Amino acid sequence: VVLVSTRNPLNIGTAARAMSNFGVTRLRVVNPYGPSFREARSAVGASPILESAEAFSSIADAVADCQLVIGTTAAQNRELHHPLRRLDEAAPDLRKELAGGNVALLFGSEKRGLSNADLSHCHCLLHIPTRDGHRSMNLGQAVAVCLYELARDLQTPTVDPTPRAQVSELERLTAVLLESLEAGGYLEPQANSVINEKIRRLVFRLNLSPEDADLLLGMLRKMLWKMTHPPGDHGND
Amino acid sequence: VVLVSTRNPLNIGTAARAMSNFGVTRLRVVNPYGPSFREARSAVGASPILESAEAFSSIADAVADCQLVIGTTAAQNRELHHPLRRLDEAAPDLRKELAGGNVALLFGSEKRGLSNADLSHCHCLLHIPTRDGHRSMNLGQAVAVCLYELARDLQTPTVDPTPRAQVSELERLTAVLLESLEAGGYLEPQANSVINEKIRRLVFRLNLSPEDADLLLGMLRKMLWKMTHPPGDHGND
Repeated sequence: VVLVSTRNPLNIGTAARAMSNFGVTRLRVVNPYGPSFREARSAVGASPILESAEAFSSIADAVADCQLVIGTTAAQNRELHHPLRRLDEAAPDLRKELAGGNVALLFGSEKRGLSNADLSHCHCLLHIPTRDGHRSMNLGQAVAVCLYELARDLQTPTVDPTPRAQVSELERLTAVLLESLEAGGYLEPQANSVINEKIRRLVFRLNLSPEDADLLLGMLRKMLWKMTHPPGDHGND
Repeated sequence: VVLVSTRNPLNIGTAARAMSNFGVTRLRVVNPYGPSFREARSAVGASPILESAEAFSSIADAVADCQLVIGTTAAQNRELHHPLRRLDEAAPDLRKELAGGNVALLFGSEKRGLSNADLSHCHCLLHIPTRDGHRSMNLGQAVAVCLYELARDLQTPTVDPTPRAQVSELERLTAVLLESLEAGGYLEPQANSVINEKIRRLVFRLNLSPEDADLLLGMLRKMLWKMTHPPGDHGND
């Protein structure tokens, strides 16, 4: 990530934080505003990246060892001389490039973005698909969105899908629910099969995990017992 | 977008800016820190969103008219009771939901994120795939990344998603279920808030349609009546 003429040290900090979040380690700054960008330490956990950040006085020097230089732009009212691609559409290609060598991702100043002179150092341009009425993003947020998209699939493998209760458990739950509804007077005793199917479909629609099926079964059994053993009745308890 | 207990007005501003960038207009804040979140006007071009932002004193109120409530979490060192999905994997489903009704996307405070109590109001959880060593993102950047992903391809037509019960209905169902479980002896009367949250999470996990929520409510009410009006008691019927 190369930040060009960044004015607000807070933005250097949030850019570094996003880099840390997405596992991007090399930060370079070109002509940062103010005496020292190293004061920009506000970002939680980002200090290793800020400490090893390098400062350059020109873009040419900052990207000298890179194979691909990508400029970011809001693409507002500007005649562009480069191919301009949408971040989400370009991302698959860029991820391949990232695997093959050093890729520089340039972000311009908060006020004016990258100048035409800055862009002349780029192979191609990237824009984040934002709303026509408000294209220009906050710098730290733009860095976060780009790195999220480019770092995708470099991260941890996906979580397992939620487990589902076995059908036998759902049948048991359906049976106890039917019994409870009869005990509660919601259904007539020996309700017909159409009603039974309706209740079963309801239970199956809930997409229960094994734990939740168990939980509901326990609840229903307790209520069923209460309904069939009124307080006056000490018969067979 | 629902910001819960946000401390830094700057973060409300950058969240609003990202919303403006990605065409998301309705901002709600729950218990923002400090005298007034309306001071958070620093974000360029975001003022219409901030001006129309609504403040609430509880999450339940803030999401009452929503069909789907999604919590965001860094998923660090926490036992989670919800299905947790990666933003990029869940996005296609969520875009369909967005076409069908109000979806709330909850973000917790800068320091602690969403609490377990906060999460009990959610149907499911989302995390941004970040590096294991530095999971927790800056709030404004997390909002930007989520909205970038979810706003993608909003123009493409989608099939109708399954309709969901409104949160206010789920709250009603939770209340009646709690009452029934107490009446049935499954829970102690005046069960503590941890139990209440557990029951609420269960109800939200079921992903009920409006019709099913209605159906279950009717069933529970009938059983509750039966449990609280034993056959010998002809007092006030």
